[in-house]
Amino acid sequence: MPVYSDPLDGLAVPVEDLRGWTERILEVLGTPSDIAADVAEVLIASDRRGIASHGTARLPNYVALVEAGVLEPAARPVRDAGKPALARFDAGNGWGHHASRVAVDWAIEAAGDLGAATAIVRNSNHYGIAGWYALRAAAAGLIGISLSNTSPLVAPTRARKPLIGTNPIAIAAPAGRFGAFCLDMATSTVPRGRIEVAARRGESLPVGWAIDAEGRPATTPEAALGGALHPLGGEESTGGHKGYGLSFAVDLLTGVLAGATFGPNIIGLFSTEAPSDLGQAFMVLDPAAIDAPCAFERRLESYCEQLVSAPTVPDAPGRVLIPGEPEAEADRRADERGIIVDATHARNLTGLADRLGVPFPGPAA
Amino acid sequence: MPVYSDPLDGLAVPVEDLRGWTERILEVLGTPSDIAADVAEVLIASDRRGIASHGTARLPNYVALVEAGVLEPAARPVRDAGKPALARFDAGNGWGHHASRVAVDWAIEAAGDLGAATAIVRNSNHYGIAGWYALRAAAAGLIGISLSNTSPLVAPTRARKPLIGTNPIAIAAPAGRFGAFCLDMATSTVPRGRIEVAARRGESLPVGWAIDAEGRPATTPEAALGGALHPLGGEESTGGHKGYGLSFAVDLLTGVLAGATFGPNIIGLFSTEAPSDLGQAFMVLDPAAIDAPCAFERRLESYCEQLVSAPTVPDAPGRVLIPGEPEAEADRRADERGIIVDATHARNLTGLADRLGVPFPGPAA
Repeated sequence: MPVYSDPLDGLAVPVEDLRGWTERILEVLGTPSDIAADVAEVLIASDRRGIASHGTARLPNYVALVEAGVLEPAARPVRDAGKPALARFDAGNGWGHHASRVAVDWAIEAAGDLGAATAIVRNSNHYGIAGWYALRAAAAGLIGISLSNTSPLVAPTRARKPLIGTNPIAIAAPAGRFGAFCLDMATSTVPRGRIEVAARRGESLPVGWAIDAEGRPATTPEAALGGALHPLGGEESTGGHKGYGLSFAVDLLTGVLAGATFGPNIIGLFSTEAPSDLGQAFMVLDPAAIDAPCAFERRLESYCEQLVSAPTVPDAPGRVLIPGEPEAEADRRADERGIIVDATHARNLTGLADRLGVPFPGPAA
Repeated sequence: MPVYSDPLDGLAVPVEDLRGWTERILEVLGTPSDIAADVAEVLIASDRRGIASHGTARLPNYVALVEAGVLEPAARPVRDAGKPALARFDAGNGWGHHASRVAVDWAIEAAGDLGAATAIVRNSNHYGIAGWYALRAAAAGLIGISLSNTSPLVAPTRARKPLIGTNPIAIAAPAGRFGAFCLDMATSTVPRGRIEVAARRGESLPVGWAIDAEGRPATTPEAALGGALHPLGGEESTGGHKGYGLSFAVDLLTGVLAGATFGPNIIGLFSTEAPSDLGQAFMVLDPAAIDAPCAFERRLESYCEQLVSAPTVPDAPGRVLIPGEPEAEADRRADERGIIVDATHARNLTGLADRLGVPFPGPAA
């Protein structure tokens, strides 16, 4: 996911203050405190990692879903089908973050026993950043894969309309002095939020980001926002059919496998018309099941060493990066500086605070 | 994988004649007949599916590996570590096709019992098309994922040198009247073979395919062949870091997890200097473990129906395709016409036939 640069007009809020406030807001909506803690943890982790688009900035949307009665804040996931290494959970239309935390924890425990396990979630909602669940497995010394389907914003190769989601893929594993390898990517070239940023900045778009409403390459953000995103790879000549295939594969492993909604049938992002009924999948592998403890991690660390010391292309902005390094760097900065909230985001949160009667915490000292 | 159009100077060989001849050639090299049948099956499946780059055209390279003593034609894989849902196989430096067939069959059987299972292979060699192993799971009604690391031909984002493989990802599942969904893709924008085709045709290259030896965008095939392939997504501005991350993730799940060689340490494609020591991974999920029989397949079929009937972009060469459709169409044509072998390929095979004393079969009647 893109790490956004800090806004110039930003307000720094201490991490634990923002976490506590987020939990209180969720509780006021009727969320039990343990579930609220899970949701807040994923949102705060996103803010810490610099992925401002997926953190507490989304709280107003989430509140609207609960207030419209299309998300059940107190629902608890139920494991309703499965075998020892594959379980399906029904999220009961509750918080996607909580159901997914429960599901990945089940997969982590089962993988410890069996070597590998997969948990599938249906009847779910948005789950925040895909990477959080993969990193939870990595923190336990395991390899984690996290997938979700999402609202249709991407045009399959040759199609003129958005019919498939930006369906993210995250994979994480422990990597020694590099902390964790954590690839966390949408299967589109860019997320819709990046087009919105381009619109605010008055930028034109490169070929490969999006098409307009008639299916031609979109050269302006406005044309793209009325059209559809390109899958990763862009046009067919540059491999866009591979990104389309990956997006479809994610949906196959989540919405289709779980018996949730999929593809063009998913309602719009944060629509309050009906429940989202999203699907998620978590695959966990335990390297220690086939190897000496930490042997895998040492090999991955040495691989990372080789890549970061490689000679770079002319004009490279820095050395070769390991997937997840920019987010981990932002995460470390948050310990010192708090979470930087931009003016719009701050206004929205203080508006929520006033309306729901939970005073918004002040800026960091 | 790209489906190549039939060559103008092609020779049509009946499928079963070419299969039988391939088996005999492998046996002459010291391959036991059951192992030879596995290798021939994967190569013939590739030829049938129109993926001429990965089929019997590679036999001369394989023969050279055996004759140089760097591939053990009689080796049998041994399951040497694991737990019920995760097994590691040591291929004993034998045929990658055979070890991988044994490994995916283990995963298919274990997934039937446990719902999901993963097999990892080390000390292996090239395994042909990734899709064959995923399709084997799909033919059993399951979801199959097949991964392999490969020789370094791709420059990680910001790097000037090829340090990572085109590491393929295949995923397949049964899809009703569509046969099977089968995504089978290299994680580079294009495979190296596509650059070689451009060189023969005197084509220039689009930005996003490759870089030259200095790390600048390669505009000619010659510059690209002296440089490195771009990961899927091309340059960083169009998401190339995602393709790099996917390629790295495949290596993490194969070479690194298996304890095989990885990344820049893998020797060149078909080098006879040393054993390849590649890694492969096969993940299999059984939808019937969490759902009514065929319910998953019916949902996937209905999803495919929605996509193929979508309105298309201007100048689309046809309707929206389901991953694997062009290969499946080529596969059906092979039943009628045999396998079309181009002049160079035919010359190489007849050369092998003469040298090893196994007469090459004649063209189809």
